[in-house]
Amino acid sequence: MKSWKEECGVFGIWNHPEAARLACLGLYSMQHRGQESAGIVTLKEGEHIHHKGIGLVSDVFREADLARLGGQAAIGHVRYSTTGQNLLTNAQPLTADLYHWPIALAHNGNIVNHDMLRSDLKERGSIFQGTNDTEILLHLLSQHRSSDLVAALTDSLVKLEGAYSLVIMSNDKMIAIRDPWGFRPLVIGRKKIDETTWARVVASETCAFDLIGAQFEREIEPGEMFWVDEKGEHSKIFSHRERRAHCIFEHIYFSRPDSIVFGESVYATRKQFGRQLARETSVEADLVIPVPDSGLPASIGYSQESGIPFELGIIKNQYVGRTFIQPTQAIRDFGVKIKLNPQTAVLKDKKVIVIDDSLVRGTTSRKIVSLIRQAGAKEVHMRIASPPTVGPCYYGVDTPQKSQLIASKYSVEEIGQYVGADTLGYLSIEGLFQVMQSNSKTITKSKYCAACFDGKYPTDLFGLDEGDAK
Amino acid sequence: MKSWKEECGVFGIWNHPEAARLACLGLYSMQHRGQESAGIVTLKEGEHIHHKGIGLVSDVFREADLARLGGQAAIGHVRYSTTGQNLLTNAQPLTADLYHWPIALAHNGNIVNHDMLRSDLKERGSIFQGTNDTEILLHLLSQHRSSDLVAALTDSLVKLEGAYSLVIMSNDKMIAIRDPWGFRPLVIGRKKIDETTWARVVASETCAFDLIGAQFEREIEPGEMFWVDEKGEHSKIFSHRERRAHCIFEHIYFSRPDSIVFGESVYATRKQFGRQLARETSVEADLVIPVPDSGLPASIGYSQESGIPFELGIIKNQYVGRTFIQPTQAIRDFGVKIKLNPQTAVLKDKKVIVIDDSLVRGTTSRKIVSLIRQAGAKEVHMRIASPPTVGPCYYGVDTPQKSQLIASKYSVEEIGQYVGADTLGYLSIEGLFQVMQSNSKTITKSKYCAACFDGKYPTDLFGLDEGDAK
Amino acid sequence: MKSWKEECGVFGIWNHPEAARLACLGLYSMQHRGQESAGIVTLKEGEHIHHKGIGLVSDVFREADLARLGGQAAIGHVRYSTTGQNLLTNAQPLTADLYHWPIALAHNGNIVNHDMLRSDLKERGSIFQGTNDTEILLHLLSQHRSSDLVAALTDSLVKLEGAYSLVIMSNDKMIAIRDPWGFRPLVIGRKKIDETTWARVVASETCAFDLIGAQFEREIEPGEMFWVDEKGEHSKIFSHRERRAHCIFEHIYFSRPDSIVFGESVYATRKQFGRQLARETSVEADLVIPVPDSGLPASIGYSQESGIPFELGIIKNQYVGRTFIQPTQAIRDFGVKIKLNPQTAVLKDKKVIVIDDSLVRGTTSRKIVSLIRQAGAKEVHMRIASPPTVGPCYYGVDTPQKSQLIASKYSVEEIGQYVGADTLGYLSIEGLFQVMQSNSKTITKSKYCAACFDGKYPTDLFGLDEGDAK
Amino acid sequence: MKSWKEECGVFGIWNHPEAARLACLGLYSMQHRGQESAGIVTLKEGEHIHHKGIGLVSDVFREADLARLGGQAAIGHVRYSTTGQNLLTNAQPLTADLYHWPIALAHNGNIVNHDMLRSDLKERGSIFQGTNDTEILLHLLSQHRSSDLVAALTDSLVKLEGAYSLVIMSNDKMIAIRDPWGFRPLVIGRKKIDETTWARVVASETCAFDLIGAQFEREIEPGEMFWVDEKGEHSKIFSHRERRAHCIFEHIYFSRPDSIVFGESVYATRKQFGRQLARETSVEADLVIPVPDSGLPASIGYSQESGIPFELGIIKNQYVGRTFIQPTQAIRDFGVKIKLNPQTAVLKDKKVIVIDDSLVRGTTSRKIVSLIRQAGAKEVHMRIASPPTVGPCYYGVDTPQKSQLIASKYSVEEIGQYVGADTLGYLSIEGLFQVMQSNSKTITKSKYCAACFDGKYPTDLFGLDEGDAK
Repeated sequence: MKSWKEECGVFGIWNHPEAARLACLGLYSMQHRGQESAGIVTLKEGEHIHHKGIGLVSDVFREADLARLGGQAAIGHVRYSTTGQNLLTNAQPLTADLYHWPIALAHNGNIVNHDMLRSDLKERGSIFQGTNDTEILLHLLSQHRSSDLVAALTDSLVKLEGAYSLVIMSNDKMIAIRDPWGFRPLVIGRKKIDETTWARVVASETCAFDLIGAQFEREIEPGEMFWVDEKGEHSKIFSHRERRAHCIFEHIYFSRPDSIVFGESVYATRKQFGRQLARETSVEADLVIPVPDSGLPASIGYSQESGIPFELGIIKNQYVGRTFIQPTQAIRDFGVKIKLNPQTAVLKDKKVIVIDDSLVRGTTSRKIVSLIRQAGAKEVHMRIASPPTVGPCYYGVDTPQKSQLIASKYSVEEIGQYVGADTLGYLSIEGLFQVMQSNSKTITKSKYCAACFDGKYPTDLFGLDEGDAK
Repeated sequence: MKSWKEECGVFGIWNHPEAARLACLGLYSMQHRGQESAGIVTLKEGEHIHHKGIGLVSDVFREADLARLGGQAAIGHVRYSTTGQNLLTNAQPLTADLYHWPIALAHNGNIVNHDMLRSDLKERGSIFQGTNDTEILLHLLSQHRSSDLVAALTDSLVKLEGAYSLVIMSNDKMIAIRDPWGFRPLVIGRKKIDETTWARVVASETCAFDLIGAQFEREIEPGEMFWVDEKGEHSKIFSHRERRAHCIFEHIYFSRPDSIVFGESVYATRKQFGRQLARETSVEADLVIPVPDSGLPASIGYSQESGIPFELGIIKNQYVGRTFIQPTQAIRDFGVKIKLNPQTAVLKDKKVIVIDDSLVRGTTSRKIVSLIRQAGAKEVHMRIASPPTVGPCYYGVDTPQKSQLIASKYSVEEIGQYVGADTLGYLSIEGLFQVMQSNSKTITKSKYCAACFDGKYPTDLFGLDEGDAK
Repeated sequence: MKSWKEECGVFGIWNHPEAARLACLGLYSMQHRGQESAGIVTLKEGEHIHHKGIGLVSDVFREADLARLGGQAAIGHVRYSTTGQNLLTNAQPLTADLYHWPIALAHNGNIVNHDMLRSDLKERGSIFQGTNDTEILLHLLSQHRSSDLVAALTDSLVKLEGAYSLVIMSNDKMIAIRDPWGFRPLVIGRKKIDETTWARVVASETCAFDLIGAQFEREIEPGEMFWVDEKGEHSKIFSHRERRAHCIFEHIYFSRPDSIVFGESVYATRKQFGRQLARETSVEADLVIPVPDSGLPASIGYSQESGIPFELGIIKNQYVGRTFIQPTQAIRDFGVKIKLNPQTAVLKDKKVIVIDDSLVRGTTSRKIVSLIRQAGAKEVHMRIASPPTVGPCYYGVDTPQKSQLIASKYSVEEIGQYVGADTLGYLSIEGLFQVMQSNSKTITKSKYCAACFDGKYPTDLFGLDEGDAK
Repeated sequence: MKSWKEECGVFGIWNHPEAARLACLGLYSMQHRGQESAGIVTLKEGEHIHHKGIGLVSDVFREADLARLGGQAAIGHVRYSTTGQNLLTNAQPLTADLYHWPIALAHNGNIVNHDMLRSDLKERGSIFQGTNDTEILLHLLSQHRSSDLVAALTDSLVKLEGAYSLVIMSNDKMIAIRDPWGFRPLVIGRKKIDETTWARVVASETCAFDLIGAQFEREIEPGEMFWVDEKGEHSKIFSHRERRAHCIFEHIYFSRPDSIVFGESVYATRKQFGRQLARETSVEADLVIPVPDSGLPASIGYSQESGIPFELGIIKNQYVGRTFIQPTQAIRDFGVKIKLNPQTAVLKDKKVIVIDDSLVRGTTSRKIVSLIRQAGAKEVHMRIASPPTVGPCYYGVDTPQKSQLIASKYSVEEIGQYVGADTLGYLSIEGLFQVMQSNSKTITKSKYCAACFDGKYPTDLFGLDEGDAK
C-alpha cells in the first residue's frame, strides 16, 4: 500500500488573551488547505487544553469549545486526509504528556523516511496510536533524555528527511520550524494588542494574518527554528542546504490567491502565468473563459495579454455539497454538470479559449470541453496555466499515482484529442520559471521544487516511488 | 406584526421514471432561491408520497428518501424563510387529502390579500396549520364543491391578488399557473426519454433544465393555467391584464446568471447594466473590481465599456459556514472580513472602482470601502448596477422595512459619504429600462415591476405597507 | 385497512407558575401509557406555546424547551402508536387556531365512528392533517358557529361514539371530559402552592399526582365535563348512560400498580387476582415465580394464598434497549432470553408455578416455559391472572386481530399443550368479577367492560370488527 | 487528586464464526458492570478490527459495526467511568500495534501501584494516551524484548500489584488472566458449535454464558494464566498467594442475581443474607418491603425467615432516563421520587420493615424512609443486608471517599436517627461470613476481601489511601 499524504495548514499564536479564538479564525481562513479535520491546542496556566474534530472549522469549533480552550497561546491545524479510517486519531495537533513537558505538534508536509524511523522506534518499545508520519517526531522527542526541548528537537530533526513546516508548543514556549529545503510555506507576523504589546503569530499562509488583523513580517527560513518564551524571541539555523525547494504548486493551485507565498503574491503570479501562456499559445478566438474558480486569475491575465474579451462562460453552483445523489439513469457528464454550467447565451457560435490552472487525469477537462460544445461553441481551445504534470508529489501533497497522470504517458497532442479540444496548450517549464524570475530579481529556478513537472526530486525518496516504477 | 414573505423556487416533472431524482436535481440547481427548507411530493400509483425537511437540498434528500418517493411525476419546492418558528409546518409543497383528490402545491410569490382571505376562511370553519399564505389556496379548493380541479382552481384564483407562480399536482394531473401580472418567473420545457417519448418539466429558472438535460421551450404566460394529464396537454388563460409586472430584481440579483428569465439571459443583462453604468458614471481609475460574487457580471461589463482593467481585488473565502464564532475583542470590520479579503498586492496605491449589484442598507458597502482603503487604495469609487432602492417588495421577496432602506431617506451624495467612497454612482432608472429595452425589441418599460426603485406598486397592497407609512 | 388505535396518557394543570415543568413530570410518571411521542401545550399570556417530539418524555423535553413553554397552565400527552408514518403529525396535544379561540386537545381512547364522521367533514371542506381520530373533534369545534366553547363541545360530543378521556385548553379555560361509558380513567386532584392557593390537576392515573406532590380528589365522572377558568370551577353532565364500561384491562395490565384506578388500588386488585387464581387452580408445587415484571403482584398473592414459597426464578435484564442486534445463527429462544433469564440455581429439580398477568398470542409464554425447563425444572405449571382473551379492543388499546388471539380458537387444554406447560390455568370470568366486587361493595360487574374476555362490546362498532369476522 | 477507578466487565470468545456478535451479546448481559462505554476487538485473518463507543452496548453496536468486525475470535469490555474527560480514549479494549504482535486488552480491576509504574515508563520514553491504569501493561509489554507474549506477560505481571481480571488477544492467541488474590471474578466456559467442535468463552459473570447458550465450566484460578491458540489450550500459575481476596461486594451488590460468582449463586447468597438479617435483627411488623430492585432477594429471605408478609410497597418507575429535568420549585424528596413511589394503599397504618442491600452515605435511605412515612406507615424499620460500610475500595470499584461513608463516623444508632427510621439494623460481619461458610463447606472467611467492612486491605495501597487519612 502506498502511503499518500496530505495537504495541511498550520497556525500558532503566542501571548494573546484571545488565543483560541484567533487560532480558530486563522484556521478558518486556511480551510482550503484541509477540510477533513481541524484542531486547536491551547496553553492555559501551564497545561494543554485541546479540541479536535472531523469536519470544517466552522463545524468543529463552537463557542463552548472556545471558552473551554481559553489560554494565552494556541496552535492549530487543518488537515485533508485520503484515508477513511481513524480520522480523529490522526487529526492534529498531536499531543502527548512527555516526561519533561506536555507537547503539541502541528505539521504540514511529509517525512519521506517515516517507514524506517517508525520501525526502529517500535522495536525500541514505542507504541504508535495512528498512521500519521508526524507521530514519529513525538516519539523521537519522548525517547530523548534531555529536558531541554530545543536541544531534543535539534537532535531529532536531523533524523527526518522530507518536508515539514511545524508549529510546536510545550508548557513554556511556542516553536516554528521549517525543513532545510523550505518545501512548504511558513510565515511569521505580529498582531498589535496595544501601543506597547503585541502577539507573535505564525501561519502557513498570509491570508490568516489578514483575517485576524495581524501584520506579515517574513518567512521562517528553510532550516530555521524560531521560538518564543517568557524571555523573548530566539532563532537558530539547525541545518543548512545550498539550494531551496519551494513547492511551485503552492503558486499554481494550493494557496489562496490573496496570500503572499515564498515572497510573492499568488494572484499576481497566477495572472502572470496567464499572460505568459497567452504569449506561448496564442490562438484566434472570441472569448477567454475560466474554469471556475481555479482558472480565474490566469484567464484574466490571458485576456489582458491577448486582448481577447474575458467572460464568465461557465457558472458555478454555489451550493455544491460534499456528497450528493447520483442519477441512476445517467445524465450526460453529470459529475461536472452538478458543479459547473456552461451557458449557451455566452458560448453559442463562439470560438472559446477555456483556461484551467492544471490538468491531472484529464477526465474532468474532457467533460468540461464536452459541455462547452453542447452549449454551442464553434471552437474550444483549452489552455493550462502550468506545465504537463508528470510525477507525483511525496512532500505532503495528495496526488494520484504516476500511472494516473495523463501527461506521464501521452503527448500534448494526444491529451488534446482525449479531452476533445480543438487545440490544447500548456505553459512551458521555461515559461513557468521565467515568470517566477521576472516576478523577483532574487529568485532563481533553483529555488523551487518542480518535481511534479520535471521529475527532479530534491531528496532521496526511500522507496516511496516504488509502486509507481512498476 | 408585518408579514414578510420569502423567495422560493418551484419545480415539476410529469411522466418520467426518475421523477423524484430529477425533481431533486432541479431543486438543487435552484438552491439560491431558498436555503431553509426543501420538499418533494411524488405521484405513485395514484397516491402522493412526500418528503420535506429543513436545510439544503443535499441534506434533506438521501438515497433512501428518493427510493421511497419513487413515482412517475413529482413537484418540488425550495424556500427561504425569515421566521424561525414552524419551519417544517410551513415547508412546501403543501399537501392535503381533499374530499375529491389528494393535492400538493408549490408556490413562489406572495398573496397580498391573504390576511383578509384567511380570516374569512377561519370564520367558515377552516383550520389552518401554518402561517403560510399558500395554505389559503388549499382551503379555497377544499371548500369548493366541484370534483373538477381545473374548475375549482379557476374559481379560486380570481380571489387571490398578488404574485403566484404555482406548480400543483392531484392524483391525475400536474398544473402550472402564473398570476396575471407575471411577477415571478415560471418556465416550461421537456426532457427526452427516447425517440418517441419525453417528460414535461416546469421550473422557476432555466438553470434547472440545464442540469437535468431538459430543453427550455417557453415561459408560462401571465394568467395562464397549463396542465398535463393522461389525455395530453392543455392550456387556458384564466385571467387577463393589460400590462405585465415582471420582477426586475430577478435580473439584478435573484436569478442565477446562467438562467434565461423573462426571455433574457441574466448574465447578458447584468453585463449590460455594467456597461450602461460605465456610460452614466464614468470616472478615472486604475482598476475595476467586483464585490464577489454579486458584482461580477456588471464589473466585467463596466471594464469592457470603460477600458479600465478588470481585476479580482477582493478574494472570497470559499468555506463560509452559516453561523460562526464572533470575536469578543472586535476585529475591525470582522463581519465582512470573514467572507471577503481585499488584497493589498492588487489595490495598493491604486484608484479603484468597486462594483456591486445593489445597495440596500449601506452597512456592508461601508465595510467593504473601509477594507479596500485599509488595503492601500488611493481612491475608492463605488458603483451600483441598479437604481437606489426606495421601497420594500410585497410580492414574494424578503426585504427590509422601508425605514431601513438607506435610499428612502438620504441622497446619493449622503449615502456616498456614509459608505466612505470618494464617489458613489447608481445606475439610473432610465438606464435600467433602456438596457431592458435594447436587449429585446419587444420588451418595454411597462412589462416590469420596479416598485422597489420607483414606488409604483402594480396592485392594491391591502394594508401591507401600513407599517412602513409610520 | 383496519384502524388500530393506541393507548395514551393525558395530563392537565391550571394555575401553577411551573405548569410546563409539572406537566412534563406528570407525563414522565405515565410513560408506561405511551412511549412513541410526547407533547405539551402551555397557555402563556393568552397564547398557546407547544412542544412535541418523537421519543420518551426525558428525550423530548430539555430545559430550553421548558423555559420556552413557560405558562400558568399546561396540558400534555404521551402516545403509543402502531403506525410508523407521520408520527409527529399525529402526536398530541393537537392544536389549532380556530376563529374564536386557540385550542389544544389531548385524547386517550378511540372514537369508533370516526370513519363516518371524517368522511362527512371532508365533504364539507375540512382539511385533515393526520390520520388521528382525535382530529375529528377539532373540526367539529371549528365548524360550530358559537363562540362559547362549552356549548360547542356539548354539541360536538354527542356526535362521538366510543372511548374518550379528554383534556382541552383554550385561551381562557382548561376542560376535562370523560365519555358517558367511562372507558378510560381520568382523575382530578389539586396541588398546594401556599396556604391559600392551589393548582387544579387532571391525569389519566393517580401516579402522576404522587410524583408532583398533588392530592387525588376524585374521578371525573362518566359523561362529565369539568372546567376551570378565571371565575372558578364548573361541572356538568353532558350525557348520561345507565351503566358504566370501565376497562377491566387497566387493572389487569395497563395501569401502574401504584395507581388508584376506577377507585381501586391496582396493586391490591392484582394481588387479589393472584389469590383468587390460587383458589381456582391449585396444584402441588415447590415454588411460585412471576414473569417479571407483569406477573409480580399476582404471584405474591398466589404465594400468600397457597402458602407455596415465592421466589425470583426469572431475572430480568435491566438494560433492554428498544432495538438490538439479532443473532444470525439462532440462539434458542433468543427473543425472550435477551430480556429474561431463568436461573438454574433456583429452578433445578423443582415443581414450578409460573404466573403472568395475561396470555395473548401464546408465543412468549411458550418460550418462557421452554427456558424454565432448560433450567432444570421438574414440572412447569403456568397460571394466568386473567381469563382467556377472546376479543380485540376497539376503545383505545392496541391489540392483535381476533385471529391472532390464541384463546379465540383453542381450548385451555390445547393452549396448555402449545405453551408446553404440565398444566395451564386461567382466572375465571366469575373469579375476576368476584374480586372486583369484593374489593368494593359499590362496584358491580356491570360497571366494567370486559369485552376482550366475554365479547360483549358496550357500543355499536361501526364495522371496525368486520376484518375480524372473516 | 485521588484516582478513583471503575467497575468493568470483560468477555472473550475464541474459535466461533459469530465471534463479534456473541461478544456483543455477552457484554449486553453484563451491562450492569459498566454503562459508560463499550468496545469489541476481533481477530480477522491475523489482524485486529475494533469498534468502541460511548454509551450502552445496544447504542454502540449496530449491524454494520458487527459486519465490519467479523472475525473468529473477539474480546470485549464494558466500563463505568467516573471521570468525564477522555471517555473514548480510556474506553477498552485498549489496542496497540506492538513490534512483535498487535495486542488488545480488556481489564476489570485496578492496579494499585500504577502511579509509580507510569512515572517510570514515561521517564523511559513511553507516551501515554489516556489516564487508564490498564495502559501500563501495554507499555510493559512493548518495552519487553521477547517475541514470546506469554513470557513477556509473565515478566510484566509480577510488577503489577492490585486487582486484575484480564482478557488479552494477540494475532494468534487469546489469554485470560486473574490476579493472585482473585479479587474480581473471571469464569470460563464453552459453547457448542456442532457435535465435535466448540468455542472457548471467558467472562466476568456466568450470566453472559446463559444468554449466548454457553456452558459454565470453572473459574480462572487466582494467579492463573489460561490461553488458547492453534495448538490447543494451556494454563500456568504465574504467581501464588496463600490466601484469596474475593470481593464480597460482588455478592452483596455488583453481580447479577442470576450469576454464579466465586462458586456461589448470587441470588441464593442474597436471600441467605436476608434470612440471617431476620435472625439478627428481628422486630414486630406487618410487612417486609424491598427497596427496588437492590433489596429484592434479601427481603424475600427476610420474609421467609420471619414469616412477615412480603409486599411491593415501593413501585419503581420503569422509564428512568439518565438525565432529566429538575424542578426549580423543589418537590420534596424529588431525586428519589422520580425513581421510587411508595404506595399508600399498601403502607397506610402499617408497621413496615424496609430492606436494602447496603447503606453508603445515608442520603437516599433518609429520603426513602421519609417517603414511606408520607405514605402513612405507622412504623418504619430499616434493615441492611450487609455490615456498615467503613472503608473505600481500591480494587476496581467506584466508591466515595472514606469521609463520605456515614458508618466510618457514626454509630448505628446515630445513623438510624439520621435516616429517620424507628429502628435500623445491619447484618453483622460474623453473620456475613457465616452465610458464606454455610453456603459451601470449603469456603472460609479468609477467602474474601471485606476491607470495605473491616478495613483489612490485603495489599499495600501505595499511598492511595492518603487522601482519606487526612
